[in-house]
Amino acid sequence: MDAKKVISDILAEKKEIKDVYFVACGGSLVDLYGADYFIKAESSTIHSSFYTSKEFVLNPPKQLGEKSLAIVCSHSGNTPETVEAAHMAKDRGAAVITLTHAAGSGCDNDRFIVWVYPWDDDELVLSPMGITLDLMTELVQQQEGFAGYEHVKEGLGKISAIVKAARETVHERTIAFADKYDHASIIYTVGSGANWFQAYGLAICSLMEMQWMHASYIHSGEYFHGPFEVTEKGVVYYQMMSAGKNRPMDERSLKFIKEHTDDYVVVDAVELGLGAISEDVVDYFNPILFYAMSCEYRAALAHNRNHPLETRRYMGKVAY
Amino acid sequence: MDAKKVISDILAEKKEIKDVYFVACGGSLVDLYGADYFIKAESSTIHSSFYTSKEFVLNPPKQLGEKSLAIVCSHSGNTPETVEAAHMAKDRGAAVITLTHAAGSGCDNDRFIVWVYPWDDDELVLSPMGITLDLMTELVQQQEGFAGYEHVKEGLGKISAIVKAARETVHERTIAFADKYDHASIIYTVGSGANWFQAYGLAICSLMEMQWMHASYIHSGEYFHGPFEVTEKGVVYYQMMSAGKNRPMDERSLKFIKEHTDDYVVVDAVELGLGAISEDVVDYFNPILFYAMSCEYRAALAHNRNHPLETRRYMGKVAY
Repeated sequence: MDAKKVISDILAEKKEIKDVYFVACGGSLVDLYGADYFIKAESSTIHSSFYTSKEFVLNPPKQLGEKSLAIVCSHSGNTPETVEAAHMAKDRGAAVITLTHAAGSGCDNDRFIVWVYPWDDDELVLSPMGITLDLMTELVQQQEGFAGYEHVKEGLGKISAIVKAARETVHERTIAFADKYDHASIIYTVGSGANWFQAYGLAICSLMEMQWMHASYIHSGEYFHGPFEVTEKGVVYYQMMSAGKNRPMDERSLKFIKEHTDDYVVVDAVELGLGAISEDVVDYFNPILFYAMSCEYRAALAHNRNHPLETRRYMGKVAY
Repeated sequence: MDAKKVISDILAEKKEIKDVYFVACGGSLVDLYGADYFIKAESSTIHSSFYTSKEFVLNPPKQLGEKSLAIVCSHSGNTPETVEAAHMAKDRGAAVITLTHAAGSGCDNDRFIVWVYPWDDDELVLSPMGITLDLMTELVQQQEGFAGYEHVKEGLGKISAIVKAARETVHERTIAFADKYDHASIIYTVGSGANWFQAYGLAICSLMEMQWMHASYIHSGEYFHGPFEVTEKGVVYYQMMSAGKNRPMDERSLKFIKEHTDDYVVVDAVELGLGAISEDVVDYFNPILFYAMSCEYRAALAHNRNHPLETRRYMGKVAY
């Protein structure tokens, strides 16, 4: 699949896209947040929204229709409410791109533009995060022009190497983190901007789902409007320091956390090399890096806790 | 102030509103979510987005401009990033409505359409939640027509009495809840739809900020895509059962919670009388009821914990 052609085919048919809807559940929803963020920040002709699949189905956006593009993602391809959402969007006349790792699944249906992605830790550009950033960059470029176009393409060429080096850089740190916090009673994840849903995903997928650890997720800017009142020694924070426009928010929350607890870990995109990507588009690459870093930190926890990341007690095991 | 006139004045000047931006921090941001949700569900001509103030300032939406309306809320009127956001939106040419409880504050500036609201537990219609629902109902009605217009107006006339009766209904329950869970190690709040940010607000404002209790907030639909793996006896859930289209999501998460832990409380809008509001618009009244219920539950916790709701260790007390 080629993002440029997918978009040019859609625009050839639709002439214009007015709305993009990103729809998925859990970890797949997390994957789509950066692209939604990109459209809001960079498009002067397209609006973007972001929905968990069942809510999209139960109370669909009024404007979903012929001039809409729905981007619907399910790794397994068979999440029932996600498949339902894709069909509903198609029924309403939207162009529908489904992203899935599973050929032959419910998402892999001739009604949709189906993008089956590989799952390779070393080629994150080919994951839903990279694909949707590429798709949205093409959409804005082809519909209205986008000054940062070449810079995004260059960034997509660089990000896998940046992530690979960052994995090595943090390896020892993840072990130290796990040694100290593998039995933390709660971990607060903190982030902002395009990265905000990486804070969400680390909490709900990596910690709750994969480690059965209690977690909560706080926006760096919102931290000062309530959540900081629980900060004290013994309460653990995982602060994501993004590269780009939102970094001042992350710096502010980190400063306060450092002053009021000794129990925190900092994952810093600038220190980890994301600054090699052009400043005007670097914001949109944070999620790719931070997802990879979360994978490293959770692996260290899993090792210490003797709790493999694949272990579930409910998901796919009991009725729900 | 009168919502109908505020909107007709804006439309007289702007001819058309293409985008609404809801901007605030913390509890004030929570207040705006229902109106954002309303526009997404009910308008065929207006797009809506929702931002914490600092992120709105640092990375503003590309489309913020002459055809935009920014609704900016600060209870104290002086939240620095919120005042900054209001000025930034005005500088970009948007119509700006500021909502504040504090006449003479930074939000009370001649550059803005200033709505100073009272703060009366018995007249929640006059709170930012009620005001913004009224404003958005007027906006959709005046710009494009809205079939539910009269039903919203009727609902605004009914909601204060519904809330008052609901407060009495839950009073004994809040005491039982506090007796059982006043020292819970974590409380998970669960909700969906227009109510989703009530789950957020209960966690970050009522529990973290006002009681220094650990909390996390889970979307009822997302619960099954990760978070449910931490559910077990001893883990406390506060499930918000909304009235309206999203109720099936809340029913599904509640069913699972009941099957896997004994430690939960259910606050049910239907049982508490919200069904008296017309079915086509009842969704948008959930936040008003649930905010009031959260106030009752947190008051019971505060009493048991001997921790007044106004006590802060950081907010307004230390540098940040």
